[in-house]
Amino acid sequence: MGGDNAPDAIVAGALAVSKRTSLLLVGQEERVRPLLGGQEIPLLHAPEVVTMDDPATAPLRSKRASSMRVAMERLAAGEASAMVTCGHSGAALATAVHVLGCMPGVDRPALVTVVPRADGGEAVLLDLGANVDCKATMIAQFALMGEAYARAVLGQEAPRVGLLSNGEERSKGNALVREALPLVDALPIRFHGPVEPTDALRGVVDVLVCDGFVGNVMLKTVEATVDVTLSLLAREIALHPTERLGAWSLKAPLRRFRGRTSASAYGGALLLGVNGVVVVGHGRSDASAVASAIRVARRCVQGGVVDAVGQAMAALGGTS
Amino acid sequence: MGGDNAPDAIVAGALAVSKRTSLLLVGQEERVRPLLGGQEIPLLHAPEVVTMDDPATAPLRSKRASSMRVAMERLAAGEASAMVTCGHSGAALATAVHVLGCMPGVDRPALVTVVPRADGGEAVLLDLGANVDCKATMIAQFALMGEAYARAVLGQEAPRVGLLSNGEERSKGNALVREALPLVDALPIRFHGPVEPTDALRGVVDVLVCDGFVGNVMLKTVEATVDVTLSLLAREIALHPTERLGAWSLKAPLRRFRGRTSASAYGGALLLGVNGVVVVGHGRSDASAVASAIRVARRCVQGGVVDAVGQAMAALGGTS
Repeated sequence: MGGDNAPDAIVAGALAVSKRTSLLLVGQEERVRPLLGGQEIPLLHAPEVVTMDDPATAPLRSKRASSMRVAMERLAAGEASAMVTCGHSGAALATAVHVLGCMPGVDRPALVTVVPRADGGEAVLLDLGANVDCKATMIAQFALMGEAYARAVLGQEAPRVGLLSNGEERSKGNALVREALPLVDALPIRFHGPVEPTDALRGVVDVLVCDGFVGNVMLKTVEATVDVTLSLLAREIALHPTERLGAWSLKAPLRRFRGRTSASAYGGALLLGVNGVVVVGHGRSDASAVASAIRVARRCVQGGVVDAVGQAMAALGGTS
Repeated sequence: MGGDNAPDAIVAGALAVSKRTSLLLVGQEERVRPLLGGQEIPLLHAPEVVTMDDPATAPLRSKRASSMRVAMERLAAGEASAMVTCGHSGAALATAVHVLGCMPGVDRPALVTVVPRADGGEAVLLDLGANVDCKATMIAQFALMGEAYARAVLGQEAPRVGLLSNGEERSKGNALVREALPLVDALPIRFHGPVEPTDALRGVVDVLVCDGFVGNVMLKTVEATVDVTLSLLAREIALHPTERLGAWSLKAPLRRFRGRTSASAYGGALLLGVNGVVVVGHGRSDASAVASAIRVARRCVQGGVVDAVGQAMAALGGTS
């Protein structure tokens, strides 16, 4: 029931992947049922809806019968392998921590996704905004969890981890980065050191770690700059009528580029560090984005990301 | 003498604009003179060079005869209207503060530049890295200085100012943003409120204010994402031989796009808040980037940016 286009886009997105995914829909039955077009997909009624104006704690207190809370309970009970929501991300975070719990050694979960790199690969980026004010110990936990994510979900054998900074010199970085550096140094991972966005997006690292404010700004800047680049390019072409043939023949590659980057980068972010697979999609998600978010969830379940992160955190606990 | 390609690229860039700009070169005479090809351009000998391994305070202590220090002294003495350097940016900052001094009401200068927007306009972005750890009062000063910059240099009559955040709700933002909000509210400017990178690059604001760590990450992410977008687009085209005609006809608009964005965004950053026009170019600047940095400096002098910022700060001092 969450997101700007719910429940229509959510149901349409779910139906698009229903052949390869066993679904359980959760929401207001009278609004969701008519959207199913007679298809027999399990539907669990949840009368309440968490809106963007609600506090993040609404599913824990006033709205315990919301789709957010009910779905999370079913996930915790083992009746689902993963949960996908396009609703209030703060509420999803609070509900996940409350209902599923954080893994041992995790102070706060982080939101993680991948962004496209110039070399055609993907860089894992976290935190994307679950924690706008971080302690250095949290940054170190993100590094360990992000590395486990890259191994489990992307199948990378020895992912290179970088700490996002304003220069690669260890003397650079803000106070948080400088304080986190020695902590990340001590982790049993392949740590590249501080890294600039430029080098990160060129492929120098596989995992890029930062606080949630900076990560959110970076992700949205990537998204916006793709738009700016394509808009200005189109504007240049439109100014010169002789080049319109080029613009026309550019349509197919542009469409593939859009498909590739939107599916990989903006399908949805995994909430990393809780005992379960919870994928948070964009509030503005259309059916295609919802389908992508469900695919992200499936990829996380198949990769065994929860076990991988749990083992990484447990190994750390054993050695410290 | 500063930057990866000095003095060759610096001199070549200067020569490229020498018809429209009255130049004074500062550096090691025996290395610079041969690059002038017999042209009569004033050259001031400075035997020492600040390297990237030097501390930022080198021009103040051990290297008082460096081109950085000597040029700044000439600027302070009124023998030049502006100074351009592609050298150690921390040293440029420290030398400017020491030799020129900060304007009344300015705790710390900020680095400012413009980034391209999807609507074809430009957004003023500051701080770009002069101050990686900021106090809320500094953010408010940046807002006031950035607004004056947009009026003086870009000729905007009533620039809209935004505070970079992870959402437009006032409850979002990190601790610094939330603390700075009421201070920026109180300024005599057209304050839009908190703004996401997405909206900022779409044209919702003319001036975007943040701390130097976040601003540096954002600027470099814009730069890197342009590369990623164009690389991946080229890759898509290369995969489909039938589309190569499109790739060919795309060359001219791409070249214009590159020229437009690189000149506007990466020519150089103005050091805002000191008593003089100091433009800091990229250390990797080639001759074309050096020429752009000199044009930025000229634009700042012609717009009277130092007076404009001084008046804005003085007006604030008078009302507080």
